[in-house]
Amino acid sequence: MSGTDFDIIVVGGGPGGYVAALRAAQLGLSAAVVEAQHLGGICLNWGCIPTKALLRASEINHLLHDLGTYGFSAEKVSFDFSKIIARSRAVSKQLSGGVAHLLKKAKVPVFDGYGKLDGVAGGKRKILVTPAKGAPVTLTAKHVILATGARARTLPGLEPDGKLIWSYREALVPDELPRRLLVIGSGAIGSEFASFYRNMGSEVTLVEVAPRILPVEDEEISALARKAFEKQGIRVLTSAKLGTLRKSASDVTVPVEVNGKTEEFTVDRVISAVGIVGNVENIGLEGTKIKTDRTHVVTDDLCRTGEPGVYAIGDLAGAPWLAHKASHEAVLCVEAIAGKTVHPIDITKIPGCTYCRPQVASVGYTETRAREAGYKVRVGKFPLMANGKALAMGEPDGLVKTVFDAQTGELLGAHMIGAEVTEMIQGYVIARTAELTEAELAETIFPHPTISESMHEAVLAAYDGALHF
Amino acid sequence: MSGTDFDIIVVGGGPGGYVAALRAAQLGLSAAVVEAQHLGGICLNWGCIPTKALLRASEINHLLHDLGTYGFSAEKVSFDFSKIIARSRAVSKQLSGGVAHLLKKAKVPVFDGYGKLDGVAGGKRKILVTPAKGAPVTLTAKHVILATGARARTLPGLEPDGKLIWSYREALVPDELPRRLLVIGSGAIGSEFASFYRNMGSEVTLVEVAPRILPVEDEEISALARKAFEKQGIRVLTSAKLGTLRKSASDVTVPVEVNGKTEEFTVDRVISAVGIVGNVENIGLEGTKIKTDRTHVVTDDLCRTGEPGVYAIGDLAGAPWLAHKASHEAVLCVEAIAGKTVHPIDITKIPGCTYCRPQVASVGYTETRAREAGYKVRVGKFPLMANGKALAMGEPDGLVKTVFDAQTGELLGAHMIGAEVTEMIQGYVIARTAELTEAELAETIFPHPTISESMHEAVLAAYDGALHF
Repeated sequence: MSGTDFDIIVVGGGPGGYVAALRAAQLGLSAAVVEAQHLGGICLNWGCIPTKALLRASEINHLLHDLGTYGFSAEKVSFDFSKIIARSRAVSKQLSGGVAHLLKKAKVPVFDGYGKLDGVAGGKRKILVTPAKGAPVTLTAKHVILATGARARTLPGLEPDGKLIWSYREALVPDELPRRLLVIGSGAIGSEFASFYRNMGSEVTLVEVAPRILPVEDEEISALARKAFEKQGIRVLTSAKLGTLRKSASDVTVPVEVNGKTEEFTVDRVISAVGIVGNVENIGLEGTKIKTDRTHVVTDDLCRTGEPGVYAIGDLAGAPWLAHKASHEAVLCVEAIAGKTVHPIDITKIPGCTYCRPQVASVGYTETRAREAGYKVRVGKFPLMANGKALAMGEPDGLVKTVFDAQTGELLGAHMIGAEVTEMIQGYVIARTAELTEAELAETIFPHPTISESMHEAVLAAYDGALHF
Repeated sequence: MSGTDFDIIVVGGGPGGYVAALRAAQLGLSAAVVEAQHLGGICLNWGCIPTKALLRASEINHLLHDLGTYGFSAEKVSFDFSKIIARSRAVSKQLSGGVAHLLKKAKVPVFDGYGKLDGVAGGKRKILVTPAKGAPVTLTAKHVILATGARARTLPGLEPDGKLIWSYREALVPDELPRRLLVIGSGAIGSEFASFYRNMGSEVTLVEVAPRILPVEDEEISALARKAFEKQGIRVLTSAKLGTLRKSASDVTVPVEVNGKTEEFTVDRVISAVGIVGNVENIGLEGTKIKTDRTHVVTDDLCRTGEPGVYAIGDLAGAPWLAHKASHEAVLCVEAIAGKTVHPIDITKIPGCTYCRPQVASVGYTETRAREAGYKVRVGKFPLMANGKALAMGEPDGLVKTVFDAQTGELLGAHMIGAEVTEMIQGYVIARTAELTEAELAETIFPHPTISESMHEAVLAAYDGALHF
């Protein structure tokens, strides 16, 4: 095997791609990564990670304006917005460097450039790597994993212009805090930005075409998130239709129609967060048997495309667009290539987290979707206001909700809103993955005093045994 | 059944007692609680809960002195210590009121007074209730659950005097912040007070007779906790012997011998946190077949004492002295009385949490104890400094460690130190309770980006598959 021939070439160095290469190396396979921009991908450089650093800042800002509740006081509380942004960038940079280090340690070469499928030679796949500078290189491999990710969807008239209309990317590196902001789309990305900017002090309007914010979450969670947002002063508009934007030199006027009535919002910046499209272009799919469907590569449950030896994982392979889904597919795909027995992904076992204030986390079926799927359900709920630790922390707003199959006792889904729920949901994910029932969860001794006890109570509540409510 | 005759009388209204009564009522049994002081017991009024409110304050104080890290600034940062204490008391009061409300809603009467066994009449147990004022009352029941809890152990020469030498009780309601504090005992209680007072600004010395702090935790966790404490400026003395204290009007001089060398510490206050003794006195054990062992009532695995129809739960029934163990025994005991099939408690499935900074949480066997128990082990570790969310939060200090049975893959124990680990440990507790193996945990998709991903990595690491380290 030469320096350009590998067992596996991964096109894309995000949480799908780099993890695939690391796992390949662990299993004794030679692997290379082709990446044109940042190791760690969007998630690490322009998504999950830098937003978490920003949201940490907005939590701190919130706390600094609520110090009296806890017996503290301070004067001249202020922040240097550029330092907050710089810290967020530094965290991304450190982690991207960490990925480079991990790949180096695993002896996985990284080829800088755009990679594309370029036919077959001698039974091997050819990958043409086109760097920003210098001549293209051709690599060969038995297996190619496409992991080129996704990008923000743009709507006509809402194209990010780098100035007044932002995608997530501009929203992560603003020069200054916009005084008035309108966020279009209330999925995880839109809701996190709305929460960040509002808690930093912007006037925020959140506009959603669906009838509720965080539309993939359980209805009750959506309703509580909306209530909390509105309490924080975010103007929330749902079932909303956008009119034609009118830009001036320094602001944008956005007509929004709700229930047949149109209101105009003049704001300094607009964030467009209306979804994701897969990066299916310029990766050499033309003339292959690889199929795409609405900007995503079609794969089977082992991440295989229509072309033997070519796989697709992560955002490129479709929803849910989550880094941990990409990483898990990476491991699964590589292990299958290595001949290991693997379990296909069940998307009802993939958790989703939104790090707005209050946080939202969930896994599996919502109550509605469980009923739609034909389950007879038992539902349990426990409000955080009845939880001792939540009160002690000054975080009484929130709810834990469980959905069980009434016939078998299987945990079908769990839905949480409140402090630290993103760190807590994994308990339910473990339970759902291992197909545990209410009996095993009821038997589990949750530590006191923790907010996580609410997870236990929400199980007991589904079976009429809640103790503290 | 009259207003003084019940299916179950519970003596003690703490997290064992009141939960037993609530569960009894749920199962259709008539129940009463006898409580002399506070509903909710020590835990809710003088333990777990008020300390958590205080530790929230000390976390805030720490953050306020580290604002620059996050891009913030403030002047004249200060706190009103009396308000911090008052908030802590208010949280306890609110929750104690909540317990009263729950009992009322469940139609469980509460008898104010000290309860004691007082013989048998007509096949029923008699309980004599002696209130602070007024005449004693006799109640009768088929079953009596003793749940009188425990109190601080006092060492000769270290008796709390309400002024210079504090037990946990005085330490929770100080008039002012002591400038110099010495804490004796580095278990959960001592370590939490050391952490609280240090982070509020006191000079703190922590003295432990054992060779390491948090001596029940895994050695590596103890070592990391010590390192963190010392970095915060806590003076830590282990394998330490106390000499005779010398009190003046306003301070105490404490000679501490380590490695044959004695150093004297003159401090404003001393906190004695040297363990727990069960409240076995004055509850009518004399002349019964109920046995005690080192201040604890001896019970079998269904909480039964030597006397038919008399049960003991919680701290009164011995270690581990944890509220959630008491509550779980309460449910188990009442369900067994009600004729349900129950599973005896396995103490290796009971988590323990310490809410110092950084937090510590664990369940099951430490590495050492697993080896001592004859297991061949596989150990996995993952440091939080390699975790993206931890870096984004500014909380890179910490470790997750797993201990597996090398033969079966069973998770024997898990040990965590770092931010929010007390809310995260439940995932491992669920896994250990359901006897999951490394395979099921590896298969679980942990959400990104969370600190909880380190729990996944620590599992993978035990099987040479860690991806991010």
